[in-house]
Amino acid sequence: MTDAATGAPQATPIDAAADLAARKIAARKVAALGGGHGLHASLSALRQVSDALTAIVTVADDGGSSGRLRRQFGVLPPGDLRMALAALCGDDEWGKTWSRVVQHRFGGGGELAGHTVGNLLIVALWDLLGDTVQGLDWVGMLLGANGRVLPMAAVPLDIAAEVEGADPARPDEITVVRGQASCAVTPGRVRSISLVPADPPACAEAVVAVTEADWVVFGPGSWFTSVLPHLLVPDLAAALVTTTARRLVALNLAAQPGETAGFFPHTHLEVLAVHAPALRIDVVLADRLAARSGITELEKAAEVLGARLVLADVAMADGSPRHDPRRLAAAYAGIFEGG
Amino acid sequence: MTDAATGAPQATPIDAAADLAARKIAARKVAALGGGHGLHASLSALRQVSDALTAIVTVADDGGSSGRLRRQFGVLPPGDLRMALAALCGDDEWGKTWSRVVQHRFGGGGELAGHTVGNLLIVALWDLLGDTVQGLDWVGMLLGANGRVLPMAAVPLDIAAEVEGADPARPDEITVVRGQASCAVTPGRVRSISLVPADPPACAEAVVAVTEADWVVFGPGSWFTSVLPHLLVPDLAAALVTTTARRLVALNLAAQPGETAGFFPHTHLEVLAVHAPALRIDVVLADRLAARSGITELEKAAEVLGARLVLADVAMADGSPRHDPRRLAAAYAGIFEGG
Repeated sequence: MTDAATGAPQATPIDAAADLAARKIAARKVAALGGGHGLHASLSALRQVSDALTAIVTVADDGGSSGRLRRQFGVLPPGDLRMALAALCGDDEWGKTWSRVVQHRFGGGGELAGHTVGNLLIVALWDLLGDTVQGLDWVGMLLGANGRVLPMAAVPLDIAAEVEGADPARPDEITVVRGQASCAVTPGRVRSISLVPADPPACAEAVVAVTEADWVVFGPGSWFTSVLPHLLVPDLAAALVTTTARRLVALNLAAQPGETAGFFPHTHLEVLAVHAPALRIDVVLADRLAARSGITELEKAAEVLGARLVLADVAMADGSPRHDPRRLAAAYAGIFEGG
Repeated sequence: MTDAATGAPQATPIDAAADLAARKIAARKVAALGGGHGLHASLSALRQVSDALTAIVTVADDGGSSGRLRRQFGVLPPGDLRMALAALCGDDEWGKTWSRVVQHRFGGGGELAGHTVGNLLIVALWDLLGDTVQGLDWVGMLLGANGRVLPMAAVPLDIAAEVEGADPARPDEITVVRGQASCAVTPGRVRSISLVPADPPACAEAVVAVTEADWVVFGPGSWFTSVLPHLLVPDLAAALVTTTARRLVALNLAAQPGETAGFFPHTHLEVLAVHAPALRIDVVLADRLAARSGITELEKAAEVLGARLVLADVAMADGSPRHDPRRLAAAYAGIFEGG
């Protein structure tokens, strides 16, 4: 067990104000896998320590604005892609303003209520250009994005979850819950997930990004619905197993009501191993405080995956269960530099 | 009566392929008033001959996407503003692509059907920035626009038209038809229009643009619903009367079914005079072919306004009743150069 910032065992907490810019290595290629707010947090950190960053994003969302758009137009759900793009926006007034626009959600009770501008923009670009990746690249250019955002698959997907006790009246029964939105809020305990269709085509550019990466980062994020799905897209999973990149798993700060209720930090690694038995991991990054009660189990679970455990203070200092982008960036930098 | 290109009487038709770039005078400030497709055509021409172009756009639309948005959010109808911005887009791939995106209209039968991306983008910027002009300036920056687009008034307006024979069963009766969309398609003959509210605040920046312009251009466009409304916004009308700018009226190529059915070219000038008795005009520009059957009446109506008549070939060569941007630009250049 080492400290992320220095590589030294049990070092003092990371100085979150460290000059990360000086530690950014232009040639370091990072592929970040996930979706939603977790990936947003990871990208907000990774953009500070990589100049060649690619986000590879789940496309199984069926709720909210994304769900409405995929049903209406048969497109990939754009929401997680949009959020990842916003996380990569330029630092200047231009990038920040367009990021706010892209993230803006219409209110009121009318036909537009709940839609974000960026989702609509992405769908329009797809329709106009007829090319998923090109459309996302144009939004990236609009935002002056520090990196690229790609979907994990070329077609919209659904998630099906094996859930124990989805019906609280029959707590031992295992049923299948279908749809990301339903899986995320099931009162039961999710055991495993699968994709529908089961063998979707990967996004070719995403496979290349994984193959050519120096580091691949999984998580943080909704474990079953944002982090694990990538491992079930056959060509992407194969690339994740065979890439020469090092692999890092960034653990969540807390269990999520519904999806991972009752999970310990090590449980996350155990279900990862179940979903991708051939996958080796190099580093597991956990928040020092979040992991404090189960260090032994966590180290053991990391070892099973072939990984060393790195503890760092990566949560917000105010105690809220969110990652602090600067602290997380410092942790990533420490790990990447440590090799 | 003079020829637009040379200022010489009865000269040969304008060479539409003339090198307009060489005739563009950076310091020439032009304010173009109108709305819809007519203003789009005028701006497509004016952008070639002015480096300081401001479009001042009607905000009375109550139909289609604009009507839905103003009812839902209480905002200015964005459609005519968006179309004007698109006309000013940059010449490079960036400007052209974003112009296509902004003009893209969602299809299908769902909640988004009929909305254009640009309308939604403008409404989102207004909501985020809380400032109408700033929001439009940001879309202008996105498009790399060659000029600025402003609303004629600071509040959404309605048009009320006095119409003769709106009910075909009683052709002599005069009734009031309210709403731009209804006025545009009334089967009766529009006699005059008024605004609701009757004394809306002008957009302050639009008043400044008119005051500081070298040339003010009215039309072409839907005469009652896009060209005349500007003359009914008190502060803008006052600026149009008192500005030291020269004033040009670009006539339509044909009468519009509904709004101006049965109108001759000179009729357009007569209703202009009725709506703005104090307004003097310097030049009336008409298409040579469209005006051929009523030259005498047209010259007389122009004279009443204080204007000289300029004839030029400004319609599309294929005979369709649309302005050819290059020909119209050549005509504008000839007039501006002629003083």
